[in-house]
Amino acid sequence: MTKVTIYVTLRESVVDPQGIATTDALQKMGFEEVKSVRVGKLIELEMDGSEQAVEARVKEMCDELLINKVIEDYRFEIGEVAGK
Amino acid sequence: MTKVTIYVTLRESVVDPQGIATTDALQKMGFEEVKSVRVGKLIELEMDGSEQAVEARVKEMCDELLINKVIEDYRFEIGEVAGK
Repeated sequence: MTKVTIYVTLRESVVDPQGIATTDALQKMGFEEVKSVRVGKLIELEMDGSEQAVEARVKEMCDELLINKVIEDYRFEIGEVAGK
Repeated sequence: MTKVTIYVTLRESVVDPQGIATTDALQKMGFEEVKSVRVGKLIELEMDGSEQAVEARVKEMCDELLINKVIEDYRFEIGEVAGK
């Protein structure tokens, strides 16, 4: 079983209302040092197949379903649990 | 300006309806090798302060606002853009 972690972020040019609301809330709570917050998605897959086979398939899945390329960017790591 | 990336995942014991729906959709589209999908959040902060000062503050922010500890786990990295 191969683990894949996909990091999905909003494109720089896209306004992020959730991030803006979070920034405002943090600043009002006293975290004035926070200048910006952007909220993206972390998609963790478990799938059959070798690391090589998986790479091409993950790209297909991102293109066909997982990513909205108009507003989102992504990259992924194979064989890791996010950030470990 | 220090960048902080927070990785938020649902606790193992928590059912993830979005992940289940995504798994089903991928399998129906022909990605039968996908066995499980879990969807979490990726929170990117930009904030003032040294790395040391930031660490304690990020923990506070997670405890007080960003994380729902009943259903979510988190960890974070300082000084990096997610996964790079």
